[in-house]
Amino acid sequence: MNFGSDNQSGASEQVLNAIIAANAGSSSSYGTDEWTHKAELLLAEIFETDLKAYFVTSGTAANCLALSCLVQPWDQIVCHDHAHILNDELTAPEMYTGGARLTGLDIDRPKLSQQALFEYLTTFEGHEPHTPQPRALSITQLSESGCAYSLEEIQALTSLAKKHDMNVHMDGARFANALISLNCSPADMTWKAGVDVLCLGASKNGALAAEAVIFFNKELAKDFEYRRKRAGHLLSKGRLLGAQFCGWLEQNHWLDLAIQSNAQAHKLAQSIQSSCYSELAWPEQKANFGNEVFAFIDNAKIKELRNAGAVFYEWPKRFLPTKDRSDATLVRLVVSFNTSDSELTQFENVLHSSK
Amino acid sequence: MNFGSDNQSGASEQVLNAIIAANAGSSSSYGTDEWTHKAELLLAEIFETDLKAYFVTSGTAANCLALSCLVQPWDQIVCHDHAHILNDELTAPEMYTGGARLTGLDIDRPKLSQQALFEYLTTFEGHEPHTPQPRALSITQLSESGCAYSLEEIQALTSLAKKHDMNVHMDGARFANALISLNCSPADMTWKAGVDVLCLGASKNGALAAEAVIFFNKELAKDFEYRRKRAGHLLSKGRLLGAQFCGWLEQNHWLDLAIQSNAQAHKLAQSIQSSCYSELAWPEQKANFGNEVFAFIDNAKIKELRNAGAVFYEWPKRFLPTKDRSDATLVRLVVSFNTSDSELTQFENVLHSSK
Amino acid sequence: MNFGSDNQSGASEQVLNAIIAANAGSSSSYGTDEWTHKAELLLAEIFETDLKAYFVTSGTAANCLALSCLVQPWDQIVCHDHAHILNDELTAPEMYTGGARLTGLDIDRPKLSQQALFEYLTTFEGHEPHTPQPRALSITQLSESGCAYSLEEIQALTSLAKKHDMNVHMDGARFANALISLNCSPADMTWKAGVDVLCLGASKNGALAAEAVIFFNKELAKDFEYRRKRAGHLLSKGRLLGAQFCGWLEQNHWLDLAIQSNAQAHKLAQSIQSSCYSELAWPEQKANFGNEVFAFIDNAKIKELRNAGAVFYEWPKRFLPTKDRSDATLVRLVVSFNTSDSELTQFENVLHSSK
Amino acid sequence: MNFGSDNQSGASEQVLNAIIAANAGSSSSYGTDEWTHKAELLLAEIFETDLKAYFVTSGTAANCLALSCLVQPWDQIVCHDHAHILNDELTAPEMYTGGARLTGLDIDRPKLSQQALFEYLTTFEGHEPHTPQPRALSITQLSESGCAYSLEEIQALTSLAKKHDMNVHMDGARFANALISLNCSPADMTWKAGVDVLCLGASKNGALAAEAVIFFNKELAKDFEYRRKRAGHLLSKGRLLGAQFCGWLEQNHWLDLAIQSNAQAHKLAQSIQSSCYSELAWPEQKANFGNEVFAFIDNAKIKELRNAGAVFYEWPKRFLPTKDRSDATLVRLVVSFNTSDSELTQFENVLHSSK
Repeated sequence: MNFGSDNQSGASEQVLNAIIAANAGSSSSYGTDEWTHKAELLLAEIFETDLKAYFVTSGTAANCLALSCLVQPWDQIVCHDHAHILNDELTAPEMYTGGARLTGLDIDRPKLSQQALFEYLTTFEGHEPHTPQPRALSITQLSESGCAYSLEEIQALTSLAKKHDMNVHMDGARFANALISLNCSPADMTWKAGVDVLCLGASKNGALAAEAVIFFNKELAKDFEYRRKRAGHLLSKGRLLGAQFCGWLEQNHWLDLAIQSNAQAHKLAQSIQSSCYSELAWPEQKANFGNEVFAFIDNAKIKELRNAGAVFYEWPKRFLPTKDRSDATLVRLVVSFNTSDSELTQFENVLHSSK
Repeated sequence: MNFGSDNQSGASEQVLNAIIAANAGSSSSYGTDEWTHKAELLLAEIFETDLKAYFVTSGTAANCLALSCLVQPWDQIVCHDHAHILNDELTAPEMYTGGARLTGLDIDRPKLSQQALFEYLTTFEGHEPHTPQPRALSITQLSESGCAYSLEEIQALTSLAKKHDMNVHMDGARFANALISLNCSPADMTWKAGVDVLCLGASKNGALAAEAVIFFNKELAKDFEYRRKRAGHLLSKGRLLGAQFCGWLEQNHWLDLAIQSNAQAHKLAQSIQSSCYSELAWPEQKANFGNEVFAFIDNAKIKELRNAGAVFYEWPKRFLPTKDRSDATLVRLVVSFNTSDSELTQFENVLHSSK
Repeated sequence: MNFGSDNQSGASEQVLNAIIAANAGSSSSYGTDEWTHKAELLLAEIFETDLKAYFVTSGTAANCLALSCLVQPWDQIVCHDHAHILNDELTAPEMYTGGARLTGLDIDRPKLSQQALFEYLTTFEGHEPHTPQPRALSITQLSESGCAYSLEEIQALTSLAKKHDMNVHMDGARFANALISLNCSPADMTWKAGVDVLCLGASKNGALAAEAVIFFNKELAKDFEYRRKRAGHLLSKGRLLGAQFCGWLEQNHWLDLAIQSNAQAHKLAQSIQSSCYSELAWPEQKANFGNEVFAFIDNAKIKELRNAGAVFYEWPKRFLPTKDRSDATLVRLVVSFNTSDSELTQFENVLHSSK
Repeated sequence: MNFGSDNQSGASEQVLNAIIAANAGSSSSYGTDEWTHKAELLLAEIFETDLKAYFVTSGTAANCLALSCLVQPWDQIVCHDHAHILNDELTAPEMYTGGARLTGLDIDRPKLSQQALFEYLTTFEGHEPHTPQPRALSITQLSESGCAYSLEEIQALTSLAKKHDMNVHMDGARFANALISLNCSPADMTWKAGVDVLCLGASKNGALAAEAVIFFNKELAKDFEYRRKRAGHLLSKGRLLGAQFCGWLEQNHWLDLAIQSNAQAHKLAQSIQSSCYSELAWPEQKANFGNEVFAFIDNAKIKELRNAGAVFYEWPKRFLPTKDRSDATLVRLVVSFNTSDSELTQFENVLHSSK
């Protein structure tokens, strides 16, 4: 019963086989290999547009390299208060951007709302050159709280951003899960909705260590190769990254993996909703969610579950939607592409048992 | 009627004379001159303790150099949401600290409250090495909203900080004004209350360009000279800074200047309270304040004042204590050491006139 | 006939199998997995000492993270003028160290000489805080020019460094090849010879993307985990790195690979020495070298070799030992663990043919 | 007999009077005052061209802010091996540029030669994105060794730079002294000779703390205000800087000061040449020099001079034109605008005395 994180699974068979196949023989280095080239072509096809794609091994590297292309060191990046870039990447955003400022909004909601962004941007009034100006918006799709932004929500946020001359970044660590949840096309959820650069995560959904930084606005990519090299993220044996992406993207494998984990997550959500010891944390979650379930679970039941071997994390108290619950704990349960039915059944049995 | 800022006045006569006197003859360079040496001795005497003092020309340099000695590039600095370091120093804090993160708390109040700091630190739960850890607290005395923290408030905040292994910085751009307001000793308001490093501003209170970074915790100063040089803030003709501080500190001149500006500010506050077109912005301000007055003034009256030649600034909407006032505007009025009685009378006349 | 670089081969079978084995099942993330743990234990055993080891995917990341633990942002790092950190890692050293200065010495020789380092350190005279002080020495073993430093040479350099309070870094991108060349123990070539931190490269010698940063002086490692995370080099699926190192180290596989590539390189060197169209570039190379051969080859012969399909690189003119050769070109030929006898024979045939 | 440095004198009377005059009354802050405005206009007139000028308090700040506008953090700045930016500004260039690399050339000569720059740029061969590319050239006029570059030399260097797409910076800490030495116009020595940005130093020639960063290529200045603010170098009472420059520039005062110090330096040079205990250090110096004299003085005579109260510095051994002189010491003697005839006579008497 491991619901700790989708980064605790290995690679899917198809991705592993791609690595094995690409390992044979000589290949030119530093990302000039055939797999890297093919992966970029596959992405252009999937996203139905011309684009520039670069591959790195970690989500932090992908996000921070992308952001560094969107702002100057004296600018401000606006994001949701729960965002990974604000809470889980140490000060990598500052290191990569040369010192830009992150501002988190809307701590009480699971997604950044149009209203909060509007209010912030219109009451801002910082005067130049004294105050960092908002120059980039970062949206996490799936949000850090497991909720997918609808296409309308994304468009509303990016419109506001564009009106204020801000570039738009999407942290897509769980992009595929959001895509399945919304049942739309990759293009719809990105450049057609106003996204300039997407960090497409494969590591959490079937790869070992592979993230793509995809520029729909290619002009913004002009310094990317310098930035990646300077950060030590240009792999000499680039085929390792290219091959993972080829194996992941071909034959819709990436979508199949997300379909699988989302479906299992829905079963888990139903167990939680139907138990009298637990409830879903955010009303929003009842609609669009992916492979993560956030729930309040009674404290006694939490203990029982842990005793039975369930692995999951408590969520930071400062993000609590209802701050005054002392009887229950907010937890995050993450489902992976290889979470089994028996794990779900076992979890449900403990959750529903009246002891 | 210039209430724009206390940085729009020149130097006081005593400070200017010190510069003139120090200008004569040869003197060793890079802060090894006699005035610089004497200024440090005067500070040790005034603060009644052994200390290390360094001099620079700007408040931003002083604050950011000080902060860079308190945290690592992957740490977090906690401050009030209105703080100068967060709103008016661009991304200098990030540049100087190598990328540390600022977190602002308590946007709705004019000072950082013990309660807000307590709640933040106890619900924080960021896990290492993924989340920047709070390692420094910065307090602004006078606060950015013109209110002085009481000794008890300072102690309460620094105690919380120490409990969480945080170093404490005080931004004392208007330190003298706060001191007069509290009527306590410099030692009481700093190291005796738990402050590790103080940025003591002279520029806004009678000097031209002179700020001291004073380390009560001398261990924290060990890299300061490298940091200052690397930032281009080691003046070759250091006597310019030493002389200003000597002139400013001798014979309690710095306190006399603050007594003068605080007294004028109290007259201004009374004008505001007694007019039916205006009111003081923060209830807290009725007690401890210095040389700044924050007020709601009716929009029509604002126009009248400006037409009469009054200079003052509107305060950012996002810091408004009451967000929904559309009839009145929040303004900041700053009194300088050389604000004249006639300016105050003229202001009062317009403010009280029924048109 | 690919002598372009040892980073153009894939992983060895044993390393690939380790990745495949480690891929199965759940595993805790961010370097807390069993392979990572085991890899560190293996290194402690092999180096016959207690140590701290961290794993990253690229040599640039390994070197620059290591260096950032050895110096402050206002210090100087001394290295050979041909060093990878000075010529091939863009400004990653500056980015990681927060702006420390690299100084390259001894441009005319294939290794940094004791004499050049001595002369530099004793005539330096930079005054604090105006001049960056030498605080770290970086040695590349194999040197960038393919020559191994003898144990005596390493000791002489590290003694000088220690005398000037400098920490010592070894860039061991081709460490195994140097070890085989010197026929000594890993301990002899590192901590017993005065090295504080070693970057042990596996990527060029049988792994796909795996480098270890090994601290013999564990005190220097105290911030490493923050630094790695902040640079985006903490992999969520850390087993990818741990597994490669386990596969690479077990049963002396890493040494076997280096024995193989060194042996083939010696054959190549003999071909070069015995041809009238070529000669070895540095006299030093006749003794200690590893899997790289630097040679002057007649310009006409260069063309012939390329036409026959040989892949190799010209070496930068500014590193030329003899600046005025216009008839011949300085080239680097790198042998990999899987360079075949037939490639060598084919190369020799073209090299020796009188056309 | 103080020949330690021209930064050991105070301000000239005219500059001090300008400060006093500007100190009176209110003035708008942050460089929007009338003196700052006027200083820029005076510079435009003096340099006979449209330009952007910004004022800061230190030469390190001026140089490093200027350089940060010329290169990206992954680029290379080429300069003379003796340059102030390379030897006397700690790692401020790296801090301000975000980590660009400095490369020093021509250690054995007192100025950067066209030949050395040509050789470097044409044998460089660094490959992108692995090697920092030369993107800026920095020339110091007077050179750090006291020699003025002729107009032809400047043009030759800037032509090479432009051919390689490099921007050109001139460190003019002693610009006025060089101008008098060459007897040409400010325009001739800067933008007409290919200089994009000049750091014009007043501090060493009659001001207290005032340096101008002057962009002839105004496009390069577009981020300057952010950069200056972010570095804490935007003074609130900007009139301090504007006034110094007004006082310094008006009525050719800056040139008169340089004429005076150059004339005294020539007398000093004659004393040195005519003594049998000393000689000028660089043959080049016999022609174009300013207010600095570099000389070999017999070791015994050095002692005598120091005993007589002469203040001067030894020059770093690694810059020695002739490395093997053990009988004499290389010293730098700097003449200031207020060096008196009696100081010169006293020095000469000791220098020429046969004991």
